Amino acid sequence: MSEDERYMALALELAEMGRGQTSPNPVVGALVVNAGRIVGQGAHLYAGGPHAEVYALQMAGEAAKGATVYVTLEPCSHFGRTPPCAEALIAAGVRRVVVGCVDPNPEVAGRGIARLRAAGIDVVVGVLEARARRQNEAFFTWVTKRRPWVIWKCAATLDGRIATAAGDSFYVTGPKARAQVQALRRQVAAVAVGIETALADDPRLTVRPAAMGADAGEAERGSGHAGEDAVRTAPAASVRQPVRVVFDSSLRLPPSARMLQEPGRTVVICRAMSEAAAEDGGATEAAGGAGGNPQASRAAALARAGAEVIPVPAGPDGHVDLHAALRALADIGIDSVLVEGGGRLAGALLRAQLIDQVVYYVAPKLLGGGRPALAGEEPARMADAVALCDVSVEVVGQDVRITGYPVYP
Amino acid sequence: MSEDERYMALALELAEMGRGQTSPNPVVGALVVNAGRIVGQGAHLYAGGPHAEVYALQMAGEAAKGATVYVTLEPCSHFGRTPPCAEALIAAGVRRVVVGCVDPNPEVAGRGIARLRAAGIDVVVGVLEARARRQNEAFFTWVTKRRPWVIWKCAATLDGRIATAAGDSFYVTGPKARAQVQALRRQVAAVAVGIETALADDPRLTVRPAAMGADAGEAERGSGHAGEDAVRTAPAASVRQPVRVVFDSSLRLPPSARMLQEPGRTVVICRAMSEAAAEDGGATEAAGGAGGNPQASRAAALARAGAEVIPVPAGPDGHVDLHAALRALADIGIDSVLVEGGGRLAGALLRAQLIDQVVYYVAPKLLGGGRPALAGEEPARMADAVALCDVSVEVVGQDVRITGYPVYP
Repeated sequence: MSEDERYMALALELAEMGRGQTSPNPVVGALVVNAGRIVGQGAHLYAGGPHAEVYALQMAGEAAKGATVYVTLEPCSHFGRTPPCAEALIAAGVRRVVVGCVDPNPEVAGRGIARLRAAGIDVVVGVLEARARRQNEAFFTWVTKRRPWVIWKCAATLDGRIATAAGDSFYVTGPKARAQVQALRRQVAAVAVGIETALADDPRLTVRPAAMGADAGEAERGSGHAGEDAVRTAPAASVRQPVRVVFDSSLRLPPSARMLQEPGRTVVICRAMSEAAAEDGGATEAAGGAGGNPQASRAAALARAGAEVIPVPAGPDGHVDLHAALRALADIGIDSVLVEGGGRLAGALLRAQLIDQVVYYVAPKLLGGGRPALAGEEPARMADAVALCDVSVEVVGQDVRITGYPVYP
Repeated sequence: MSEDERYMALALELAEMGRGQTSPNPVVGALVVNAGRIVGQGAHLYAGGPHAEVYALQMAGEAAKGATVYVTLEPCSHFGRTPPCAEALIAAGVRRVVVGCVDPNPEVAGRGIARLRAAGIDVVVGVLEARARRQNEAFFTWVTKRRPWVIWKCAATLDGRIATAAGDSFYVTGPKARAQVQALRRQVAAVAVGIETALADDPRLTVRPAAMGADAGEAERGSGHAGEDAVRTAPAASVRQPVRVVFDSSLRLPPSARMLQEPGRTVVICRAMSEAAAEDGGATEAAGGAGGNPQASRAAALARAGAEVIPVPAGPDGHVDLHAALRALADIGIDSVLVEGGGRLAGALLRAQLIDQVVYYVAPKLLGGGRPALAGEEPARMADAVALCDVSVEVVGQDVRITGYPVYP
């Protein structure tokens, strides 16, 4: 590892301080090094707060003059919520800037680097670039694809079942795995489930305060479903809660759903009215019903209960179009979503090639049947299964965690 | 680790020399130690061959006098295919015998130890007992339960699928996992599949010679099914082949099945004629057929093709009773069986609490649907899933191997 790589690795670690807090901004770390000594360091901690470079330069003070600055992501060149960092670096008189990776944000995208070079600063780009890019994969996806990074979390038995046929998933995995899922929820902008899971489990989808420690883990239902504890544990409103998202084509979520009583936002994604209304109208008519627009009244009831109802066009299967749904989430600033079940939603996302990352817990137990981790149509040939790359395997308490990134054909 | 444990550990390793060769005898290792020096060692290598103690005493010669003998399993006291080892130990003048575990064989079961003690030899029993018992779990099951030890081997995608709905399983796992399955086949007395797998894959179920190395692994189809290569690889007749077993209630296996052309025995277990004939007769009658006994003629055709057809009573589900089937296998000397698929057979074995050990390969890929690793009815509650104990997790090439022992309620 070169000196540049050594300092960049430290800057990448610094960036992690902001993990789960900066959305929809990236996490960024910066280090000021003068004559072989670290004289300043900083991280971007929350959206609207100062950038990493600003903290690092402040700390360095006069020592920034002639120094080398290590920054995990290209310094910005535009006036956003804060003044451009490129200008701050120039003003501080730094001699050299080492950048992890270029910012894909079209408002930056190389302009920060060009500005620095124009001012005579020696700029090196791409040190530990793969790690720097992976660190902000959610942000990069959000900026370049206008959709959130999608993590599918699953907890299944060895034979691939997330629940019994009757829907019981209490529990699949042990307390350590369940505690890890809590930690994962802290790192994402949103947590999502399909309506079947929402109806079966009535989950809260909240982050329990870290102070509750093992209890929080115990309380978390560890199914492929985003199931919850039977025993009530009070989530502190002080914890930042991920946005809760329910994929609910026909607005079947009841306004009494537990997640609507929790602190934080709940978004319900349904089919756009025009299409749903037609079907509803038909059904109502057939049943000799009173007409009107049942979907509109259900939407109004959910809104009164605190939900944000977002209609999107239907896909060819009659359910919400998943691309459109993710676009809608991106538009309200959600750059990462943890999909926690069930098998139908996950299966549909896989077929739409929209799962970016898999976090799969295997519990060493055999159910023999029940609800599968992934449901729906599958390819006719085993060779067409979607392989994962960068696979990691870890024993977590009594369970095994397998993570990786799907490689679509 | 005490001195006794250290020597017993060596004897346990020695015993492994006979692995896969001694069936239906146990593997046994023996060590003769005199004045802190190993002066003789032996292992039981094949049924009908000398016992471990005999080899070890021969090697020790005069040095056996006054020595301590370490033997993994209680020395025999009866005349079987060889004279009793207890007498040989007494005749050799050993001073002390350390035994791993008692032999559950009713013809021994403590009598060997009693005989030694009666002759004034100091006998210590139960050193590294758990390991000694586990080493011969197949033999112990065969002797005490009159059925073979059942290992269920499965190779499934991360979402628990062993094949597509169309039956394709080519390949689930990578070459290293497939080579391990070859090695596993060498260690068991029999390899079994259900008729669905036999029809879908037309597997050979043979051990390819070790000399073929990676090729043999490559050629092995790594599905939950016992699928085989499309390309023909010639298994050498010189390799000891496990008995091939097909669970085939209605004798649907065609006499042209590939496994019937391979060296070694093939056993087909079907429903006893009386019951099957009644059903067949009915069907034939309904179809206006020529009567006769179709099952008997199918059995005759299979026998002509070299199969051994064993009828057993039907269970409540109309398929062969699995307890009776395993009893029949035990009666022909099979002490261990590797069940390689498919999901229905494995599911039925699990529900009958007849799976003793699980060797499960997880391939890091997602299919999204298809044939499940275990099929059939399942418990209504996740809490009733069958947990595994003594779980071990190992990365094998690109796949993950999870092994363990089901704990039935």
